Amino acid sequence: MMRWKFTIEYAGTDYAGWQMQEGVPTLQQSVERAIHAFSGQTIRLHAAGRTDAGVHARGQVAHADFEALNTPMTGFEIAKAINAHLRAEPISITAADIVSPHFHARFSAVNKLYEYRILCRSAPPAIDRRCVWHIKKPLDIEAMRLAAQHLLGCHDFTSFRDSGCQAKSAVKTLSRLDIFANPYDGNGGVEIKYLTEGRSFLHHQVRNMVGSLVMVGQGKWAPEDIRRALEARDRRAAGPTAPPQGLCLVKIDYSK
Amino acid sequence: MMRWKFTIEYAGTDYAGWQMQEGVPTLQQSVERAIHAFSGQTIRLHAAGRTDAGVHARGQVAHADFEALNTPMTGFEIAKAINAHLRAEPISITAADIVSPHFHARFSAVNKLYEYRILCRSAPPAIDRRCVWHIKKPLDIEAMRLAAQHLLGCHDFTSFRDSGCQAKSAVKTLSRLDIFANPYDGNGGVEIKYLTEGRSFLHHQVRNMVGSLVMVGQGKWAPEDIRRALEARDRRAAGPTAPPQGLCLVKIDYSK
Repeated sequence: MMRWKFTIEYAGTDYAGWQMQEGVPTLQQSVERAIHAFSGQTIRLHAAGRTDAGVHARGQVAHADFEALNTPMTGFEIAKAINAHLRAEPISITAADIVSPHFHARFSAVNKLYEYRILCRSAPPAIDRRCVWHIKKPLDIEAMRLAAQHLLGCHDFTSFRDSGCQAKSAVKTLSRLDIFANPYDGNGGVEIKYLTEGRSFLHHQVRNMVGSLVMVGQGKWAPEDIRRALEARDRRAAGPTAPPQGLCLVKIDYSK
Repeated sequence: MMRWKFTIEYAGTDYAGWQMQEGVPTLQQSVERAIHAFSGQTIRLHAAGRTDAGVHARGQVAHADFEALNTPMTGFEIAKAINAHLRAEPISITAADIVSPHFHARFSAVNKLYEYRILCRSAPPAIDRRCVWHIKKPLDIEAMRLAAQHLLGCHDFTSFRDSGCQAKSAVKTLSRLDIFANPYDGNGGVEIKYLTEGRSFLHHQVRNMVGSLVMVGQGKWAPEDIRRALEARDRRAAGPTAPPQGLCLVKIDYSK
């Protein structure tokens, strides 16, 4: 057996998320099907992040164990061969590498980078409608930046985890939560990007953090209300879950 | 009568271009239909750039003449009312303004900015598949930058105009042709952006210039071959037409 690591880019719009489910299209199913079509092997992919329906990835990572191939192939050739069976779908294997049998896409990860995008303007998004959360009124960026400081570091993130989250512990360390705002269309529209990093995240954690930061940006909460929400350790104390289409799993790092 | 100027953003993927044609979906048709649904008026839009099938716009501009509305409305309200009838489509009116009856979206334009995007990497694009030209092998950016210098300024662009182009003169002034290259995916992929500006462009001019620059980037042409192509004043002397999906009409300026 050989363990392979795949880096995968996809638009999640038309999928019911990463993870295989009966009767609905999932990204895992499409990639496993393409791998089978190329290799004849029925493998099981283990992904680093099981992204939700509508969420995108530029650098999802998944591993799988293969029987030796009939003809030895490089990672470059394997990625190309799998992509040949994904032509009809918005999914692309951007890298394939042989890894140690101890490598695990999820448990070996030392850092994950997520991006969340908001388009702030009156007019609905056209070109980016599948990858931004549309908010009609301007948000207070400085207030959100102040609020974000309360989330940095090691905390019990119970208030920001989905009720269905299966992680054993809600204690996580958030190492980055930066907020960028840039002109979008020359007509007053503003694109806001949240970049956040940590070793691992709870289910819906990024979307719940963004949903709460938007409460601050809208002036409904003061920046310190984020700390109050965090300390409550109660999902009902935090803000709403931001919609999936603004979220993208950008990059996962592994130790050398 | 009142003349209105509209700024329009759209994803051109599923349209047969801006201009109305029998039996196929066009952007002009969709916007005119939405305007009729909101106002009851059958108007004719005149656009600054008649973008081709598959080409996008972040700042297309079109004007139209309206009978006085029953209730006076601001530009903000008019854009919102039209957008309410475009919800199902990737089209958005980002601004609406009353202009002088002498304003003409096309003839009053003093500058246009187009962007062309290429994704250079082995793996096909997933998220951006509708808005980049995918080229598998790396391009020589410096060689393309040298080549681009030959196109700047006032020239007869006959070699870079489509055979069906109806412009009276092929003499145009290109005021900008910048090329940017940035890492795309952390796996060696490179995104190349061409930003080009001028008062007006010939049909397919940007796509034909990019197609020829790519010949240089691939090492099939030397940078000076661009000058030879230009001086030939013959479409057959220049490179192929770059595909439409990489092109976006970003911004149009008008004198005050």
